[in-house]
Amino acid sequence: MAAPRVQPIGWKDDRVVILDQTRLPQEERYLTCGRVDQIADAIRTLQVRGAPLIGLAAAYAIALAARGEGEELPTRVASAADLLRATRPTARNLFWAIDRMVSRAEQGASAADLLEEARAIHREDAETCRRIGEHGSALVPEGATVLTICNAGALATGGDGTALGVIRSARAAGNPVKVLACETRPLLQGARLTLWELLRDEIPATLITDSMAATCMQRGMIDIVITGADRIARNGDTANKIGTYGLAVLAHHHGIPFYVAAPMSTVDLSLADGSQIPIEERRPEEVLGFAGIPTAPKGALALNPAFDVTPAEIVTGIITERGVLTAPYDTAFPDG
Amino acid sequence: MAAPRVQPIGWKDDRVVILDQTRLPQEERYLTCGRVDQIADAIRTLQVRGAPLIGLAAAYAIALAARGEGEELPTRVASAADLLRATRPTARNLFWAIDRMVSRAEQGASAADLLEEARAIHREDAETCRRIGEHGSALVPEGATVLTICNAGALATGGDGTALGVIRSARAAGNPVKVLACETRPLLQGARLTLWELLRDEIPATLITDSMAATCMQRGMIDIVITGADRIARNGDTANKIGTYGLAVLAHHHGIPFYVAAPMSTVDLSLADGSQIPIEERRPEEVLGFAGIPTAPKGALALNPAFDVTPAEIVTGIITERGVLTAPYDTAFPDG
Repeated sequence: MAAPRVQPIGWKDDRVVILDQTRLPQEERYLTCGRVDQIADAIRTLQVRGAPLIGLAAAYAIALAARGEGEELPTRVASAADLLRATRPTARNLFWAIDRMVSRAEQGASAADLLEEARAIHREDAETCRRIGEHGSALVPEGATVLTICNAGALATGGDGTALGVIRSARAAGNPVKVLACETRPLLQGARLTLWELLRDEIPATLITDSMAATCMQRGMIDIVITGADRIARNGDTANKIGTYGLAVLAHHHGIPFYVAAPMSTVDLSLADGSQIPIEERRPEEVLGFAGIPTAPKGALALNPAFDVTPAEIVTGIITERGVLTAPYDTAFPDG
Repeated sequence: MAAPRVQPIGWKDDRVVILDQTRLPQEERYLTCGRVDQIADAIRTLQVRGAPLIGLAAAYAIALAARGEGEELPTRVASAADLLRATRPTARNLFWAIDRMVSRAEQGASAADLLEEARAIHREDAETCRRIGEHGSALVPEGATVLTICNAGALATGGDGTALGVIRSARAAGNPVKVLACETRPLLQGARLTLWELLRDEIPATLITDSMAATCMQRGMIDIVITGADRIARNGDTANKIGTYGLAVLAHHHGIPFYVAAPMSTVDLSLADGSQIPIEERRPEEVLGFAGIPTAPKGALALNPAFDVTPAEIVTGIITERGVLTAPYDTAFPDG
């Protein structure tokens, strides 16, 4: 049987415990953070990553700040929120969770209330994953091979994952789906994290380089593509890990359904379309080498956008906890 | 000014001297091969690579076999040819060069004649690159950014390269073209080799992961795509480095011209279409790690097709030494 679900984040003895994802798959090492700036660093360096999970990490960080001493609680919370908001720009869930915690603090919540709020976000995220899995699994053909990119699994959420939540749910319902995982250059979250958590759960998975997705589609090896999301604009345009947009175009060309799986907290109703989503540009060194080993010659230049934007027109549907939404998204989104 | 052209292969003191491309860009190390099996190993392990260049390496290997002792010259040449034919299956130029050398031996050529034949193939390949460059450079808009994949340059040919030959020719004609180079997982020929030779020649080049090509096209950063080829079927279907087919689909989607640059020796008139091209499947370990470091967890599975096939329908044109050919290719190819 499958191992118990991995816990990428938790609260223990007044500290936030974070699984250091930069060490996977070689080593399962946990960081114990007693200060907000340690969690901010962990988010910035991708020790904790995945849009829903960094929201959750920020919520726990604010709970930690609330228990501190010195200034008044709302001031401590506001400073922590500022620090956390500056860590990474793209994932909507980060700002959503921070805003929710700050709003509770402004309403007079105690430190204990704020810890309970972070725990509520954690529980809700697990339940959201469960519902995304339930709604999404109905879309997956019997025995399908699902292509995914990056890691939208238990290592990216407070539950079973979004894209991988759908896969887990399909398998739990007896559908023998298999996974083809893009390695996801430059930081190889597909190879390092998705393969690790799927192997752990005994879900059949095969690794490909990102550049092999096209030939796999051409050969009829892929039945459906499911990815996570970092931010979704009001019209359904979706920012996700670099490489996602290319997969969507390829799926469109080959007539393969392309789904995004994400909680509603990923949706940013304030943005009319994807052109307004801020895209994080990371250090070129991540592209110029790997694990500290340079691959390109000295003096070489590189680009490193961490995300791309897939236009809603080539998204078959967005799998949320409220159901599978389809275009036009601006009216499909609740409260939209 | 630019450095003198790199010499990835040469004949010196009755030995074949090969630049070990697996050591680039860290180290410029040369192998001196006195035996055919050493050259066969160098081809198999990609110490020497690039479709035209492995043809040339095989030609020199046969010239070496012809100078050997023991059996009759034609027998020695036939054994060498068998060994070389078994090294790599996809590049047409390898078989083309072997057949040309074997045919000369069967016609009674001496060892000296066969060395002269290998040198002729070398000279002709340099001239072919020059002509490909000349024909292709007319297609490149003023100041264009050219996307390429893998290495189709001086390190892949006996001259200035095919795709990179076009770029060199455009720059020599005063067109300030720039290059965007896909790193080309799993073996990173783009990062390691293309960046190295372009930096050496002071041609502006920027590295991207293969997964970034789509977003670069979407942002209007790419004006034209030019790649090499390993084998072209009679109908124009083209096998090239894994990832090429995806770039062709993406270029098609974005209305960007997609050209293949290759000598006529890449064309295999015996194959009706690309479905008949043998595709080399390499060891999964190349995908399961990065620069020798394992990235995926132990026990993970991976696919590793080294090439893919781009259908002629999405190839804008094939740049050869005889000119730029366009569909229908079966009548466009000379002798076709």
